[in-house]
Amino acid sequence: MSLHEDMVLMGDRAVTASRELARLTARKKNTILQVMADELEARREILKEANARDVAAARTAGMTAAMIDRLTLTDSRINAMAKGLRDVAGLKDPVGGTISRWIRPNGLEILKVRVPIGVIAIIFEARPNVTADAAGLCFKTANAVILRGGKEAMLSNQAIVEALQTGGRKKGLPEYAIQLVTTTDRDAVKELVQLEGKVDLAIPRGGESLIRAVVEQARVPVIKHYKGVCHVYVDAAADLEMALKICENAKCQRPGVCNSMETLLVHQDVAATFLPMVVKRLSQELKVELRGDEGARKVVPSMSVATEEDWYAEYLDLILAVRVVPSVQAAIEHINRYGSNHSDAIISNAVVAQKQFTQEVGSAAVYVNASTRFTDGGEFGMGAEIGISTDKLHARGPMGLEELTTYKYVVSGNGQVRE
Amino acid sequence: MSLHEDMVLMGDRAVTASRELARLTARKKNTILQVMADELEARREILKEANARDVAAARTAGMTAAMIDRLTLTDSRINAMAKGLRDVAGLKDPVGGTISRWIRPNGLEILKVRVPIGVIAIIFEARPNVTADAAGLCFKTANAVILRGGKEAMLSNQAIVEALQTGGRKKGLPEYAIQLVTTTDRDAVKELVQLEGKVDLAIPRGGESLIRAVVEQARVPVIKHYKGVCHVYVDAAADLEMALKICENAKCQRPGVCNSMETLLVHQDVAATFLPMVVKRLSQELKVELRGDEGARKVVPSMSVATEEDWYAEYLDLILAVRVVPSVQAAIEHINRYGSNHSDAIISNAVVAQKQFTQEVGSAAVYVNASTRFTDGGEFGMGAEIGISTDKLHARGPMGLEELTTYKYVVSGNGQVRE
Repeated sequence: MSLHEDMVLMGDRAVTASRELARLTARKKNTILQVMADELEARREILKEANARDVAAARTAGMTAAMIDRLTLTDSRINAMAKGLRDVAGLKDPVGGTISRWIRPNGLEILKVRVPIGVIAIIFEARPNVTADAAGLCFKTANAVILRGGKEAMLSNQAIVEALQTGGRKKGLPEYAIQLVTTTDRDAVKELVQLEGKVDLAIPRGGESLIRAVVEQARVPVIKHYKGVCHVYVDAAADLEMALKICENAKCQRPGVCNSMETLLVHQDVAATFLPMVVKRLSQELKVELRGDEGARKVVPSMSVATEEDWYAEYLDLILAVRVVPSVQAAIEHINRYGSNHSDAIISNAVVAQKQFTQEVGSAAVYVNASTRFTDGGEFGMGAEIGISTDKLHARGPMGLEELTTYKYVVSGNGQVRE
Repeated sequence: MSLHEDMVLMGDRAVTASRELARLTARKKNTILQVMADELEARREILKEANARDVAAARTAGMTAAMIDRLTLTDSRINAMAKGLRDVAGLKDPVGGTISRWIRPNGLEILKVRVPIGVIAIIFEARPNVTADAAGLCFKTANAVILRGGKEAMLSNQAIVEALQTGGRKKGLPEYAIQLVTTTDRDAVKELVQLEGKVDLAIPRGGESLIRAVVEQARVPVIKHYKGVCHVYVDAAADLEMALKICENAKCQRPGVCNSMETLLVHQDVAATFLPMVVKRLSQELKVELRGDEGARKVVPSMSVATEEDWYAEYLDLILAVRVVPSVQAAIEHINRYGSNHSDAIISNAVVAQKQFTQEVGSAAVYVNASTRFTDGGEFGMGAEIGISTDKLHARGPMGLEELTTYKYVVSGNGQVRE
């Protein structure tokens, strides 16, 4: 079979599975999630052995230490995968719920009901835990999933998917509900995201080049997350102690993640007071490198010079771009120009400034007097997330179970015809 | 300027306009819609003159009578465009509404609020009324719109857009809120749908080849409607008089539209009774050509033979494919295999069959004992529609004002940071 035929077959099988999945009750799905978790734990040694071979090959290939760390399956990571599946079992099933209902003057009853999307393709890099997480969330929402992980994690992913399938089938997991692309042919992704009518949604997870490749090749809808260039704007009417605490958290609590702050905007009226506080805490104590514009460097001449590229940068590191702005309007314009539609915060006690900021900043999540770090499925109370969308359609911000569903209309009558 | 630079400039201008649009109140937007309608009527003679030149060129080019009819602007069509804008002014503004609100244990308040999508590109064929309709709906939802109509309607579209702009500006329509692509270069569509970060959504409206071209070229999200292959399934437990009335309506009331019936599925237990009723009313009286499978032709040997292609066909004409099926399950499988995810109906008084059908048929709209012809923004009570989506993401079925919006999260705290 050609690669194309292979992928079409996977797509057809997923479509068939998606119809069987749609018939499962919430209770049945939760039981299956539990046995999938049990099986992962039971196969702990098999998983670690497969993973050890992936890791050895990655070392030989000269993979960086950080990437090898992400690739490695430890006991605690296997436990976390199993716990993740059990946690998902405990979440409320959104499928089948009525979103709204109304009656038309002709007596037709229109129900808008929540249904699975159908078939979801997840394209990701060499993080085996994504395999179990994504499979669990897609299964809970009765979507068939086709997983395409990084080739460096192939043996680990195969072992994980086999555990999920074997465990799940004991309690009625439909065949082909969870499939893994096992060819390492790079064109497999292209074939996958062009399966119109079979794959309903592609979610790429990983670096910008992976995501761009998917977007350029895709004919099916894609939900993605390019990057997180998040801002904190400290207004003239800010509580500066609160602002400092939030800046420290947004920048330093976990600098390598997408919802950490990359650029600090400070109103000119408080710059002379606030920037020295930032220098003391973030730069001197927490070793953050500050890169300032002219206005910031007027107050703190020791800052290095921020260039145009710094405003676009997702450092994911202890580096912070700093700009002094003349107004909330200027802060909003900066964010809408350089930001990534992810998460941005205003620190201010002025209601007018808060309102203008939350209305005019175009990002998925806009914060008032809180850290950008809260943009997260767990922190939002969704229980789990498959990713964070910086797109504007279907899902924005953290994508939980509800965002893995769509709706349909069920219209009931007693013989109505259109005049 | 190159075509690419031209389109980037349009995109940038639309982004700027979208920010101004987002600041307009509902009242202001409605006033602007009213003056746009007034201006269309005031420019009636200018519109008809521009249109007459389009129509003359189309005749010279040998355009079909049906296409020339769609291209032609009459007084009543100009009135209808103006009335359309006034009707949209009267609809409830979805922008700014709160979709949901919750408080997290740490005190953070999360609001999910409805916001405009941003910049929408509408790509359509030679129907000038789409220009005013689409501009009105996008404007009402505070989206900037870039319109790309068929070249045959260029002068008409320019006259309409000029009327909308001139009228609207009297009451504060932002510049570049409504833009028309005036180059006839075919690559303009490609450039437009690749404007990532500027164009947030592309909606192609027209024939399948137009839509396929947009999907293949697009890097921005697309919501589309390929075709409507709608089914009516007459169950063993159907009221056959009701079924006949619904079939007549679904097939004949307006055969050229996407929500009309193309295939009739009949349960074998009622085929011998029901098919002769269909022959009498639809074939003999209403001149519908029937094409049957073996089972149907066993009852009505005079039917022509349906081939595999007939099950996929969107006739848009007085032709009906007919198949006899052994069960509701077989009907569902037929629809999910050959259908287009549009609108499908079951006629049955058996609750079990109704439930199975509405759950398992994967279409955007599923009907019980009613005509498929009701899939329409007006009939659903949305007031107006920009189209009908056969996609599964963001919007399914009729797309009204709400479907032209998205959401964002506004998160308010008093200094919360992440632990």
